[in-house]
Amino acid sequence: MTKLAIGQINSTVGALRSNADRIIQTAGRALDAGARLIVFPEMALTGYPPRDLLNVAGFLAEADAVLDEVAAAVPEGIAVVLGTVRRVQGRHGGRRLIDAAVALERGKLLAEVPKTLLPTYDVFDESRYFEPAPQDVSRILTVDGVRYGLTVCEDLWNDRLAWGEDRRYRRDPVAEVVEEGADVILNLSASPYALGKLGLRERIVSNAASRWRRPVVYAAAVGANDALIFDGGSLAARSDGRFVDVAPLFEESLRIIDLEGPVVKPPSVEPMAELSQALVLGLSDYARKTGMRGAIVGLSGGIDSALVASLASLAFGPRQVLGVAMPSRFSSDHSLADARTLADRLGIEFSVVPIEPAHAAYETMLAPALDALGPRPADDVTFENVQARIRGAVLMALSNRTGRLLLTTGNKSECSVGYCTLYGDTCGGLAVIADLWKTQVYQLARWLNEHRIAGAIPESTLTKPPSAELRPDQRDDQSLPPYDLLDRVLHELVERELSIADAAAATGADPALVGRIGRMLYRAEYKRKQFAPTLRVSGRGWVGRDYPVAQGWV
Amino acid sequence: MTKLAIGQINSTVGALRSNADRIIQTAGRALDAGARLIVFPEMALTGYPPRDLLNVAGFLAEADAVLDEVAAAVPEGIAVVLGTVRRVQGRHGGRRLIDAAVALERGKLLAEVPKTLLPTYDVFDESRYFEPAPQDVSRILTVDGVRYGLTVCEDLWNDRLAWGEDRRYRRDPVAEVVEEGADVILNLSASPYALGKLGLRERIVSNAASRWRRPVVYAAAVGANDALIFDGGSLAARSDGRFVDVAPLFEESLRIIDLEGPVVKPPSVEPMAELSQALVLGLSDYARKTGMRGAIVGLSGGIDSALVASLASLAFGPRQVLGVAMPSRFSSDHSLADARTLADRLGIEFSVVPIEPAHAAYETMLAPALDALGPRPADDVTFENVQARIRGAVLMALSNRTGRLLLTTGNKSECSVGYCTLYGDTCGGLAVIADLWKTQVYQLARWLNEHRIAGAIPESTLTKPPSAELRPDQRDDQSLPPYDLLDRVLHELVERELSIADAAAATGADPALVGRIGRMLYRAEYKRKQFAPTLRVSGRGWVGRDYPVAQGWV
Repeated sequence: MTKLAIGQINSTVGALRSNADRIIQTAGRALDAGARLIVFPEMALTGYPPRDLLNVAGFLAEADAVLDEVAAAVPEGIAVVLGTVRRVQGRHGGRRLIDAAVALERGKLLAEVPKTLLPTYDVFDESRYFEPAPQDVSRILTVDGVRYGLTVCEDLWNDRLAWGEDRRYRRDPVAEVVEEGADVILNLSASPYALGKLGLRERIVSNAASRWRRPVVYAAAVGANDALIFDGGSLAARSDGRFVDVAPLFEESLRIIDLEGPVVKPPSVEPMAELSQALVLGLSDYARKTGMRGAIVGLSGGIDSALVASLASLAFGPRQVLGVAMPSRFSSDHSLADARTLADRLGIEFSVVPIEPAHAAYETMLAPALDALGPRPADDVTFENVQARIRGAVLMALSNRTGRLLLTTGNKSECSVGYCTLYGDTCGGLAVIADLWKTQVYQLARWLNEHRIAGAIPESTLTKPPSAELRPDQRDDQSLPPYDLLDRVLHELVERELSIADAAAATGADPALVGRIGRMLYRAEYKRKQFAPTLRVSGRGWVGRDYPVAQGWV
Repeated sequence: MTKLAIGQINSTVGALRSNADRIIQTAGRALDAGARLIVFPEMALTGYPPRDLLNVAGFLAEADAVLDEVAAAVPEGIAVVLGTVRRVQGRHGGRRLIDAAVALERGKLLAEVPKTLLPTYDVFDESRYFEPAPQDVSRILTVDGVRYGLTVCEDLWNDRLAWGEDRRYRRDPVAEVVEEGADVILNLSASPYALGKLGLRERIVSNAASRWRRPVVYAAAVGANDALIFDGGSLAARSDGRFVDVAPLFEESLRIIDLEGPVVKPPSVEPMAELSQALVLGLSDYARKTGMRGAIVGLSGGIDSALVASLASLAFGPRQVLGVAMPSRFSSDHSLADARTLADRLGIEFSVVPIEPAHAAYETMLAPALDALGPRPADDVTFENVQARIRGAVLMALSNRTGRLLLTTGNKSECSVGYCTLYGDTCGGLAVIADLWKTQVYQLARWLNEHRIAGAIPESTLTKPPSAELRPDQRDDQSLPPYDLLDRVLHELVERELSIADAAAATGADPALVGRIGRMLYRAEYKRKQFAPTLRVSGRGWVGRDYPVAQGWV
């Protein structure tokens, strides 16, 4: 059988020419290695997801022109299958877009197959842009007498037997290509990472192969675009469902595949190893693709900022990371000491900017206006927020001066209940761990300490009770339930999207407490609307979530 | 013929019980006035758009329960047609949602008709949630022997003759209900306001009536939900396309309609009158529906903040608005004087908080950390941003203390090119005029001065060259092209979504300049990702726009 290749590449959204160069070069290397056909991921040419760039006619025209350039530039002797957007005559008149698998060889387009199943939920909005493949679509590409059936990402995810009642769509493009006579099923994919999704993806590919008794070649995108991380891990399964190739995770890779070669087993990956790699890739790609160099992190001495600084030092190298401690009149001595210890051990730059001068200045400045409003209410948090906002302004000043990316350090638990100050600790261009529950933050920090950063996070940071230190003797558990309980309830409300009553029933927690948490969650929506893009590592993060701010439900 | 009614009501998203009460009471009043049938807007029971509340199973169950309560509570003798979400057996297994027109009378559901055309573009994402009506749907409701054809919003907007090649969908539900034998066409609508859309909507309704030679009754939602403003203006057209009823804009209204009554002409509305009413409704509904009382506006003496304060004083009454001037070492005397004059003339509260103490404190505080980074670059804007952020923190402190809503004052031109400081002048819960070009800001300010606020905006605010006053003798035109040229180019790039090359061709402007503006636009995407919800008054605002931050296209 013909040797195949998978080009597991890291495309940048909109960077048509550099993505094209990457495709052409990778195809050349595949040919040199003896492959006659190479498969690239979904939207490899445009980057995925291109979002509203797809509304720009000039962008679509350029994508067509660059596709022609790719066809002109690939070496003779190899067929290339890649994902891109194409304009077609719409079914109802006018020109519409398809999310296409395009096959080409030097000087010639061979085939153009539209994606059939267009996910439109959670982070996906493909019905916003694309037409599905018509019922009578042909998806076969023949190379050296072998018939390859072309499918795109979600097309692989609707097997009737596998999903039963949970099946999302009526059509099954895999069954359709089999019926059309495919010998081998190709799938071009861009599937966003989520913790724990890896095994599911392997099962989907393996099941498709064994069910239809045909090899399946799954070409996955790698790299991060804004909040979405694509983890790679392309797969080739032979017709009994066993794998003959498993590409590495979180990095580019050219795979040369012999579908009759020996069987390999996907390596088992520790969840925390996977998670840290995902976040490191998300961080470094966001900075690289936006042209920022290095990062700034405010270091409170607490666990969240310690974890973010550790991830940043892995992503950028320690010399490209600046940690900033900003002690106030309420900061404990150990906070500054812990921050300094962390910075020393990570080897990152470290700066201390005490915020008392600005804190005092705001008190003086605001006194007349505030006094005119009458006596200070008992639960007033005005000056707690002022402190957080001073720190945000200090960090942004350093970001403005250096061109480094300020990283937001909030976690998913805080972000859920709004236990954060808008324009204060929420400042930053990218939120690194805001899709990790506080309990996961501890887990990942301990794992990194043990496996990647040689215990850089001080033990006291890991063990002391969390505190915002915005007033004397403040502790998180004065405002919030214990994090293990809070996270358990929030999991039901945020990730499973249960109502308050259903979440109370599911967790067995006190309904009054669940009600309080639910109200905090819904009422903090206005803060999340102004939150930085958050790297998405769960099945339900903040990107792709769209709740109303003004609402009368909760 | 039976007397009909339209219940043009202002529903709140998710507020099932209060929306139900409004429906029941309005139906009672309609019956008292002799109507046998009343039509409410799309999603009148749930509010529109409910967005991801539709993912919450408990919310869907509650919507069903409340619908039953409505059926139990409406008076005998009137049929009620209203919009809500319903769960149905999906076409591919599992239960799916429909955007339904439900007909009921006391104690009984009469009909349930799914919306057929599900807009999924710009601000709409209905394919994310809903299944379309099946091909063999029946949409007829018979009352007193008259057959009413039920359609929902977009269902009315796909006439083959009217749209030709621009037609978005294959099906035309209006043609389908006619074929099914409808005597009268009902349309339940929630159509977001945009300046200039009113005439189009009238033509759509009138054309449908005259084309099919049947009366059309168009029940429109009114009120604002987050960034979207629904302007009302329900219509009833008789079979020759002429109107027998035109409901008022921007307010609730119960219409009792005689389809054989005298013809009325839709009043012509001055564009600036319409725009100011839309913004006032957007403001007051956002505050009311989020439970905020009154507003805070930072007053720079410039035109943007003057306009926002004027609109706020119309929305809340002047005593509920606090204007805050925050002069710095770079503020001109006339700025403070203009701010004070404006506040006096509007009759709003006024406070002055000079920011020099904090400005000086930041200089002292930051000096060691900044000096360690080397000499200050020539184009450094660090301390310009610090000033803007001090002002943001001052305003937020006053908002935190008072519970008043801080309003963001940036306009669409600034917001497009990123001529604003994130966490500084972008602070605020709602952006009031960020969908108005700077040229429209002047236009609306002058119109308000003349017609609504008795010249409260000082002439010098209207005539002086715009300046951020963040350094000595700063003027906007040092950083930006003149606003008339800038707005013309941005219109092509933002609203028409042209590429830089196409926008240069369309405007005839210098391609290098258009390129510079385009780069500013695309590179400011990260600021807009953290911008407050912006009241949408154009055909293409910030809500419903989804461009990537990290991208290699521009």
